Amino acid sequence: MSDSVAHRQLAPEPEEAFGLDAAFVDEIAALLRADNRVRVKELVTDLHYADMADLLERLDSQDRQLLIETVRDNFNADVLPELAEAVRDQVMEALGFEDFAAALSQLDSDDAVYVASKLSASEREQIAARMPQEARLSIEQGLAYGENSAGRLMQREFVAVPNYWTVGETIDYMRSGQALPEKFYAVFVVDPRNRPQGMVELSRLLRAKRPERMKDLFDQDVEPVALDMDREDVAFFVKQRNLVSVPVIDKSGRLVGQITIDDIVDVIDEEAEDDILKLAGVRNSEVSSLYNAIISTANSRFPWLAVNLATAFLASGVVGMFEHSIEKLAALAVLLPIVAGMGGNAGTQTLATAVRALATRELDGSNAWRVMSRELFVGMINGLLFAAIVGVIAYFWFDDQLLAIAIASAMFITLTVAGLSGIVIPYALQKFGADPAASGGVFLTTVTDVVGFFSFLGLATLILL
Amino acid sequence: MSDSVAHRQLAPEPEEAFGLDAAFVDEIAALLRADNRVRVKELVTDLHYADMADLLERLDSQDRQLLIETVRDNFNADVLPELAEAVRDQVMEALGFEDFAAALSQLDSDDAVYVASKLSASEREQIAARMPQEARLSIEQGLAYGENSAGRLMQREFVAVPNYWTVGETIDYMRSGQALPEKFYAVFVVDPRNRPQGMVELSRLLRAKRPERMKDLFDQDVEPVALDMDREDVAFFVKQRNLVSVPVIDKSGRLVGQITIDDIVDVIDEEAEDDILKLAGVRNSEVSSLYNAIISTANSRFPWLAVNLATAFLASGVVGMFEHSIEKLAALAVLLPIVAGMGGNAGTQTLATAVRALATRELDGSNAWRVMSRELFVGMINGLLFAAIVGVIAYFWFDDQLLAIAIASAMFITLTVAGLSGIVIPYALQKFGADPAASGGVFLTTVTDVVGFFSFLGLATLILL
Repeated sequence: MSDSVAHRQLAPEPEEAFGLDAAFVDEIAALLRADNRVRVKELVTDLHYADMADLLERLDSQDRQLLIETVRDNFNADVLPELAEAVRDQVMEALGFEDFAAALSQLDSDDAVYVASKLSASEREQIAARMPQEARLSIEQGLAYGENSAGRLMQREFVAVPNYWTVGETIDYMRSGQALPEKFYAVFVVDPRNRPQGMVELSRLLRAKRPERMKDLFDQDVEPVALDMDREDVAFFVKQRNLVSVPVIDKSGRLVGQITIDDIVDVIDEEAEDDILKLAGVRNSEVSSLYNAIISTANSRFPWLAVNLATAFLASGVVGMFEHSIEKLAALAVLLPIVAGMGGNAGTQTLATAVRALATRELDGSNAWRVMSRELFVGMINGLLFAAIVGVIAYFWFDDQLLAIAIASAMFITLTVAGLSGIVIPYALQKFGADPAASGGVFLTTVTDVVGFFSFLGLATLILL
Repeated sequence: MSDSVAHRQLAPEPEEAFGLDAAFVDEIAALLRADNRVRVKELVTDLHYADMADLLERLDSQDRQLLIETVRDNFNADVLPELAEAVRDQVMEALGFEDFAAALSQLDSDDAVYVASKLSASEREQIAARMPQEARLSIEQGLAYGENSAGRLMQREFVAVPNYWTVGETIDYMRSGQALPEKFYAVFVVDPRNRPQGMVELSRLLRAKRPERMKDLFDQDVEPVALDMDREDVAFFVKQRNLVSVPVIDKSGRLVGQITIDDIVDVIDEEAEDDILKLAGVRNSEVSSLYNAIISTANSRFPWLAVNLATAFLASGVVGMFEHSIEKLAALAVLLPIVAGMGGNAGTQTLATAVRALATRELDGSNAWRVMSRELFVGMINGLLFAAIVGVIAYFWFDDQLLAIAIASAMFITLTVAGLSGIVIPYALQKFGADPAASGGVFLTTVTDVVGFFSFLGLATLILL
């Protein structure tokens, strides 16, 4: 933010240029507690809806309620989709069903469907009863599509013109101020049966002369997506083709909506977040966890830890098989953390790479064998290197040549298996329809721990005792 | 893809609708080896550039070279930015400097800068010498900005009009076919000194009447970004405000370029990938690793494993302090994997959540204390639960009440410390300017292993032996 002059020329705002200032949040909180509503109103009235959402998230629940009371009369509905779920529930409570329903009716159809999808069935019923019929029906239709489908993501508002229209007719139509969406990036061209034939981006439209025909301006690379297509597939396609919007069609091929780039940005963000958290064993539902209650967070993390406990006992059982060896040579126990740590880490490196490659479609049937053999070799190379390093260190630490040979061999075996499992496990999970990010880690560490402990303790027992 | 009719109406393509078909890749490979260039040309001539890039990535290096030879005469430059780095290097070799320079000159400035930034200094020199002066200068200017800066990301092509112009004048200017960018989403409005005063999205422009003045159509929420702003900050801002483009200004406030939503999509994607891979200990440079050579992949994974080996020896040293206890009671060694596994996993759950929250700006100074105390409690709750579970299992397994008490206490301590460290470590790293995703994991598992082993073996030694 080097140039403050240029900034002041544009929208001057009370908060920092990018993101909310902590001092601003504290000021609002203090004013709310001092019941200085007039000043609060002044300060928040020009806030962008995204910043208002941030502000609501940052305040504690008591101040949050006070703020809602203060802005109730001119509450900006656009704030709602931006809120973390736990915060939105509180805002709904503070607003009451009547005002919440009114706000929901003002949103674009995709945003309204998104917000409604996060409500409980009984809340949804209460709110639907207070909404105008048209808005209610549009939400019900949206909710009828699968959770991760294009239908759920799409916006029912779009601009479509017949294929025989000219550029001039299209522009005149838009100027006539018919019910157009708030923002749009392209005009769809449809045949007489309302099936999309192509899409003309606005920059293309603006460059064209008035008498040119819309059907001559098509972008050839645009294909419509079906209502039930997975949103990840839609995001992949839009990103791949650098599009700003895609038409959505129903079973008979008719244009029923559009999905725009700003929704795709959210999908990409959420899917990446999903993968990162699932790999770490945090459940999907915890995505906006910072605002969740302590008990529900603890609860959401419990299952993964329980699964890990079961696999840890498995690993522990392998160690238990060699209890007598350890009684004779406690040095074996001292070296166990090294075998487990290295195997788990090497496997996780490969696993994360594989999960990303599967998500970005870089890994599939056409190159799976090549990639697997590659990872096997990578595992073997690092296995050899670390076998040498660990062997030498163990030799000097315990002054025992055979122990050094046992740990070195186990290190090579474990890192090789880790490299191969890191790619085979997620690929196989995906093949069988499971989520490689969510369950890959458990399988992987189970394999590396069991193989690592068994090979180390087994070899040591064979050659040492 | 439920409706094939609607599909066929639009662009019929040789590959699957979304992503390349493995069979298609195999077919091309077979044709290339059979030297059937005519048929290959036919099949690939209508491929979208992104699919062509995919095809090049999927082929092995020999077939890749054959394909480049085949399409050399009408090689689409837009393929270049889409390629993984290792593949692009090969494509450059196959094309030769002359043709590669020609292709580079055809790209939009932001894409050309991106591709050039990935070349070695000597390659860049060779290629620059073969480019027209204008394109060369534009790349040199772009490369002068920091790697993650707005300047590097921006496109020098944009549409700007004086603030006193009307909508009609603006549209006429665009129709006159001046040097406009290939695609654009908004028109910037500038003052006489070329400082941006606002931005008018094209949908707004198209809805307005011809005599309306551009300065009355401004979007108030748009602020320009400085050339040296971090690209993550730009992405955050654009996403937060649901923008399609932002103006970029130099130190004197003059408009020098724009950053568009499609670049932002790439930034979001790359940053998420970075975080996920760094958390798993895969170096940043390995991002498009599937196409990297085995040796360089093994090499890129070595440092993290080496760091982990050092910390594993630290943990192992803690176990070594209690070698005599283990000699007396080998059951201690059997339970070690459980302490280490549970501590590491609980900490990783919190760490991943914290890294995401830092990346999305949900965690900062204004709520750090609240979030930390929350994670502490979450850790304590799960610590209590698992202390009970593990204690009971250990009691029945080893029939030893005191051993059960030792492991249960250690479990509570470890999970509590894991929860707190999972948030304090990444937050502190970020405060001190380090990357929480890249180094958080090492610190964390070192803490959980050391605390876990020390508390378990220490307590056991105290109360049992």
